[in-house]
Amino acid sequence: MKLGTLKNNTRDGQLVVVSRDNQRLLPATGIADTMQYALDNWDAVYPALNELYSKVNQGEGDAVDITAFHAPLPRAYEWIDGSAYINHIVLVRKARNAEPPATLTTDPLVYQGGSGVLLGPTDDIVLHNYDWGLDFESEICVVLGDTPLGTSGADVDKHIRLVMLCNDVTLRNLIPAELAKSFGFFNSKPATAYSPFAVTPDELGSAWKEGRLHHNMLTTYNGNVFGDVEAGPEMHFSFQDIVGHVCKTRAFTAGTIVGSGTISNEDTSKGSSCLSEKRMLEKIDSGAFVTPYMNVGDTIRIEMLDEDGHSIFGTISQKVVAP
Amino acid sequence: MKLGTLKNNTRDGQLVVVSRDNQRLLPATGIADTMQYALDNWDAVYPALNELYSKVNQGEGDAVDITAFHAPLPRAYEWIDGSAYINHIVLVRKARNAEPPATLTTDPLVYQGGSGVLLGPTDDIVLHNYDWGLDFESEICVVLGDTPLGTSGADVDKHIRLVMLCNDVTLRNLIPAELAKSFGFFNSKPATAYSPFAVTPDELGSAWKEGRLHHNMLTTYNGNVFGDVEAGPEMHFSFQDIVGHVCKTRAFTAGTIVGSGTISNEDTSKGSSCLSEKRMLEKIDSGAFVTPYMNVGDTIRIEMLDEDGHSIFGTISQKVVAP
Repeated sequence: MKLGTLKNNTRDGQLVVVSRDNQRLLPATGIADTMQYALDNWDAVYPALNELYSKVNQGEGDAVDITAFHAPLPRAYEWIDGSAYINHIVLVRKARNAEPPATLTTDPLVYQGGSGVLLGPTDDIVLHNYDWGLDFESEICVVLGDTPLGTSGADVDKHIRLVMLCNDVTLRNLIPAELAKSFGFFNSKPATAYSPFAVTPDELGSAWKEGRLHHNMLTTYNGNVFGDVEAGPEMHFSFQDIVGHVCKTRAFTAGTIVGSGTISNEDTSKGSSCLSEKRMLEKIDSGAFVTPYMNVGDTIRIEMLDEDGHSIFGTISQKVVAP
Repeated sequence: MKLGTLKNNTRDGQLVVVSRDNQRLLPATGIADTMQYALDNWDAVYPALNELYSKVNQGEGDAVDITAFHAPLPRAYEWIDGSAYINHIVLVRKARNAEPPATLTTDPLVYQGGSGVLLGPTDDIVLHNYDWGLDFESEICVVLGDTPLGTSGADVDKHIRLVMLCNDVTLRNLIPAELAKSFGFFNSKPATAYSPFAVTPDELGSAWKEGRLHHNMLTTYNGNVFGDVEAGPEMHFSFQDIVGHVCKTRAFTAGTIVGSGTISNEDTSKGSSCLSEKRMLEKIDSGAFVTPYMNVGDTIRIEMLDEDGHSIFGTISQKVVAP
């Protein structure tokens, strides 16, 4: 099933069911007006949503216009971002002259992000200060149902309701001073943007296995392919690992979003999913950072294609604008 | 105005208006069924809620039983905790052999906490592992209305809708390994508990000034006064400072909760608002930590009395229990 949220001048928007080919939509009015309502009442509403999905796949419904879409959850109760690709951690820490943590490969890295104000897939990124070092990060996310404290990795799958993509917008130059205070990211992580469509794991077929999604993350920066990076094999900590880790001392409510961290491959010919990695590779190669951070007018597209070249989650397509 | 949320087997509970003397309540049904709805529609619902407040103060309504209360927001879109009392930062960092940050007095410390699963004022604290080092932290919080990016300290007051207390439950022994990874707290900060009543700033009279609340925080541990600590004068960063800081790069949605950090005074005769401070003072004094962290059966009460000895926010009254 594919779900999305249309902007309708309310805080939570209007839940719609989207056809497998991303072409048509049917509002879920009367079943679940909002995505949060659907997640709060998943078992009860799932059959009726699935019926709607059959109808929209058979040709019913209106045309999809992704500029009308909000984030699947315009505001969420939690946004927890992992950093599961070891290559990304190593490169980004090199870029800010920091050591990777001693527990790099044994203990998942996660941070708690802001979740009250999230961006839709085509919402502009407002650049308030170029010196803050605006960067994109292409990531995969899962949306959880109610997940009890103590849930182990092996039991995580049954709590994963939806999968989607995000652009975890980052202000690189605010990170060092913030992490020096040891309380984690805050100002350095402004509002995150999400893909128009969130899909149930069964839509992903055999590409979804052991808590990893085995497709490439396609990142297009200013019209050129910037990264075409394999998301599966180098995801050191799976979503099972990440969710199992965060459940050690806490329970999570339906609608909690958990991210993979920036998709990254050791093979540099695959490109990157953020500017910071490319800059670090330039520094290693030539002694200097070459690619600047984002500026007004830059554009970023993030999407994932299936084996037939069809976009699974729709496209995050954002432009950087002045305030 | 005093507001609270009754447990009613729904995720968000039932909004009630509570009399100034904490004795009676009237449900806000038909005006705003939930606290989040009230915050989402504050200007529209405020007059009718205030009328209800007049009625309940004139003797209408049912008796208050605080065991029936949930947190004012049983789930919130963001929970951001500051650390505004310099004495607390200095002591707690000493306790874990860490240096205070270089920007201690110039740049507010904040971390993003989990907000999807919160505890009511009399909910038990479940101790899953004694070795994690369970501690309480008595704090003041504000609940924001919609607050734009770039809001400056001088403009913060108009976005503060409510004030309440919290017990920012902390697992001290999980902190060092977590902070060593540099992404901030996560497992070390399980669900936070909140006072039964959240009050509008005008209820606080002259005790609420310049983003600080000038009353004592009364913390009672296992039946003995543990701290009777002045909340006003030593709050180095005011709520204006903290909220202004977090607004630098982000906007906040209605219902965002912002905390003060553990209330702390340099004068040790005032006691403490968490075990960690007391332990550090013991270490400085005698060379060893004496007071153990919380164990099954321990009780904690957190409240704030006005100049006439009346409880303003009701009492957080929790017991530590085995899983």
